Amino acid sequence: MAGSTPLQKRELEDDNENSSSMRTAETMLRLLPMGLCVVALVIMLKNQQTNDYGSITYSDLGTFRYLVHANGICAGYSLLSAIVAVVPRPITMSRAWTFFLLDQILTYAILAAGAVSTEVVYLAYKGDTAVTWSESCGSFGSFCHKATASVSITFIVSLCYAALSLLSSYRLFSKFDAPVGSYNNKGGIEIANY
Amino acid sequence: MAGSTPLQKRELEDDNENSSSMRTAETMLRLLPMGLCVVALVIMLKNQQTNDYGSITYSDLGTFRYLVHANGICAGYSLLSAIVAVVPRPITMSRAWTFFLLDQILTYAILAAGAVSTEVVYLAYKGDTAVTWSESCGSFGSFCHKATASVSITFIVSLCYAALSLLSSYRLFSKFDAPVGSYNNKGGIEIANY
Repeated sequence: MAGSTPLQKRELEDDNENSSSMRTAETMLRLLPMGLCVVALVIMLKNQQTNDYGSITYSDLGTFRYLVHANGICAGYSLLSAIVAVVPRPITMSRAWTFFLLDQILTYAILAAGAVSTEVVYLAYKGDTAVTWSESCGSFGSFCHKATASVSITFIVSLCYAALSLLSSYRLFSKFDAPVGSYNNKGGIEIANY
Repeated sequence: MAGSTPLQKRELEDDNENSSSMRTAETMLRLLPMGLCVVALVIMLKNQQTNDYGSITYSDLGTFRYLVHANGICAGYSLLSAIVAVVPRPITMSRAWTFFLLDQILTYAILAAGAVSTEVVYLAYKGDTAVTWSESCGSFGSFCHKATASVSITFIVSLCYAALSLLSSYRLFSKFDAPVGSYNNKGGIEIANY
């Protein structure tokens, strides 16, 4: 930046220090859901049970297929975004917007996957007599337990993503105000000079 | 503010003008989901069908009861928050945080309600042979149509709330930076004076 004052330089240094610790925190916060997504994915993928009543696998239920896809996409995105986040470079507006929008979409997608799967697990445990849906977990207890575990992990991922959404919206909207801030600063100097 | 410069005054006026149009936009954006929530709520509350196969009401399904509650809470919160938003007064940090957190929670709650209800409507239309859940919409077509309408409206509410979350996070995080901005400004004056 041409003609930057000593204060502006000090600010830039402070910003760099802040953004360094923030970058580490963000990378951790992106690697954690990646791990959790992979665990939830593997538990669900291996979820099948065969007994005297018949056999059931996760792919018999469209909802669980969606859960697997959502977790897979989430794990991939978490890994990619962690790699992008860990590289120290200036945050451009377009990068902040991309992170913000993708984080928001992923948060909603993974929350929706968790919610619909919870509904199916709930129906599998309790059934619904009004619409003649019988409970199935009496016959397929192990299947239901694993599904519950996978869904619970998905909800922890949702929490991580809610935090990431917060972080990326903070990054974007504090960035948004940066030009106004430097305009104020210039303005302040001008007034003092006049 | 004691000793404010003309430029700072002009900025304050600009801020006031911006916040006035933003306030109107926000109030509209809060009244819209209120109306939609009430419509979705009424459609679901009146949703019952009796025919030769038996009778079904929304309250037979726990999910639809949750949808009704979520829509009711959402309508109430939308109205209250619209009233708070329409009154012109300085936005305090605690108010910005309250709006931000409640908007986020409502967005997730209404999205989850929409998602689980979609799952139930889907199962009611298609059934799931693997877990012996039969489709019910062949027998209760009118019930399913009304439920679909209510769920669709709930998704539009989710979109409104996603926008509101965006707005309140923008408000909060641009507010967050305000103290840094005025610090810059002061700093600018000091440097110019030295």
